Amino acid sequence: MLQNIRVVLVNTSHPGNIGGAARAMKNMGLSRLVLVDPLDFPSHEASARASGADDVLENVQVVATLEEALVGTTMVLGTSARERRIPWPLLDPRECGSKSVEEAAQVGGEVALVFGREHAGLTNEELQRCHFHVHIPSNPDFSSLNLGAAVQVLAYEVRMAWLAAEGQASKTEKVEVASVKSAELSTSDEMERFYDHLESTLVEIGFLDPQSPRHLMARLRRLYGRSSVAKAEMNILRGILTETQKVARGEPHKRKD
Amino acid sequence: MLQNIRVVLVNTSHPGNIGGAARAMKNMGLSRLVLVDPLDFPSHEASARASGADDVLENVQVVATLEEALVGTTMVLGTSARERRIPWPLLDPRECGSKSVEEAAQVGGEVALVFGREHAGLTNEELQRCHFHVHIPSNPDFSSLNLGAAVQVLAYEVRMAWLAAEGQASKTEKVEVASVKSAELSTSDEMERFYDHLESTLVEIGFLDPQSPRHLMARLRRLYGRSSVAKAEMNILRGILTETQKVARGEPHKRKD
Repeated sequence: MLQNIRVVLVNTSHPGNIGGAARAMKNMGLSRLVLVDPLDFPSHEASARASGADDVLENVQVVATLEEALVGTTMVLGTSARERRIPWPLLDPRECGSKSVEEAAQVGGEVALVFGREHAGLTNEELQRCHFHVHIPSNPDFSSLNLGAAVQVLAYEVRMAWLAAEGQASKTEKVEVASVKSAELSTSDEMERFYDHLESTLVEIGFLDPQSPRHLMARLRRLYGRSSVAKAEMNILRGILTETQKVARGEPHKRKD
Repeated sequence: MLQNIRVVLVNTSHPGNIGGAARAMKNMGLSRLVLVDPLDFPSHEASARASGADDVLENVQVVATLEEALVGTTMVLGTSARERRIPWPLLDPRECGSKSVEEAAQVGGEVALVFGREHAGLTNEELQRCHFHVHIPSNPDFSSLNLGAAVQVLAYEVRMAWLAAEGQASKTEKVEVASVKSAELSTSDEMERFYDHLESTLVEIGFLDPQSPRHLMARLRRLYGRSSVAKAEMNILRGILTETQKVARGEPHKRKD
């Protein structure tokens, strides 16, 4: 089940932190590390700090964009240090652990824990790709955790939640019932294609002015992002968009009149 | 209250770990660090890894023996990686956090969290000076946490317990989550008007055939019904429908082209 939870590090500057993250992951039983455009990798320093978690580094997946890192995921949780203008469903690490394990236990459930740059964190755009933001509580006067330490805290909470779930043997029924659900959920990449389609449709009908977008897409992402859209529902939404575009373009469409 | 909780590192080999521990402590609001016979301290590497937690390092107390480090304590908790021959009260990190905070809140309560050597941990004799042993759950095949990471996990659990005790239960989070929730939700009558509007729009664009509705509205009700649509989001959805209708009716609409 833990293999369904990937750790994604975005634009990491210091290879030592990649090694520290790998070690923290392996200690807690996580193995899938994805690096988005790291500044310095592979590196001796990463291997040194991994100190024994070499297999995690050997199997690392290096990609160019966050989109690629999230392909196949059904739940994305992004760490956020600061308060953002647009409110978003916010979890503490403990809630993050239980949500991740719950999702990863579903058939087809694939979870990403996303960590931002050492000094700048995740951009607003990146945070908007996340279903949940996770804030690690910290001293307000000194709140910036080391990247490896942040990975350690979330990986630890994942393990605690996993151990708790394993302890509940009688849960199987629940998992099976729910498992039908997750296999049918839209993945992150399917959601991204939907948002692209939605955005271009809104421009075509004149509802969205590209010159003055007013956080409109962010708000719609938040709405649909928290809904766990099923694949069947996605087909309906995409169908509506396609018909709307035909109408806007004056193309023949299904209307019978 | 957190100032009544000290972190004790015994015979640390690598100064980088001392710096990492200091940073983890300060992030979580702990400030009192005691080093028992460190191999290499003070050190540039410790300061570098502390990256901003210099005050913790400046106020560090260096002593020769564990006894000295424990002077004044009323509760001692020692980390233990391995199972010991002598059974001892064993806590997980979460229990360690709540016990520590409970004790530190007492008048005169003084708590020590004791961490052993990087490779050998604490000796049996040292462990016997502890009231409780703390085991950080980890992958049995790769169980040795980095020292800074171990400090991070326990300090994090101390902070979580402290926040819970303060009644703040991670104050900022609660406020933010609440702000999402208290963003007024659409009432059921508003939702009904939305469904009516959605249905007539889908008929107008030809997506919904009133002669053969195929449970389409039921599916859309299920999707939007589980999303707890905020009033502000509802305004967006209704706005999209209105613009779509104008396009379908060939009426002037906002599109600029």
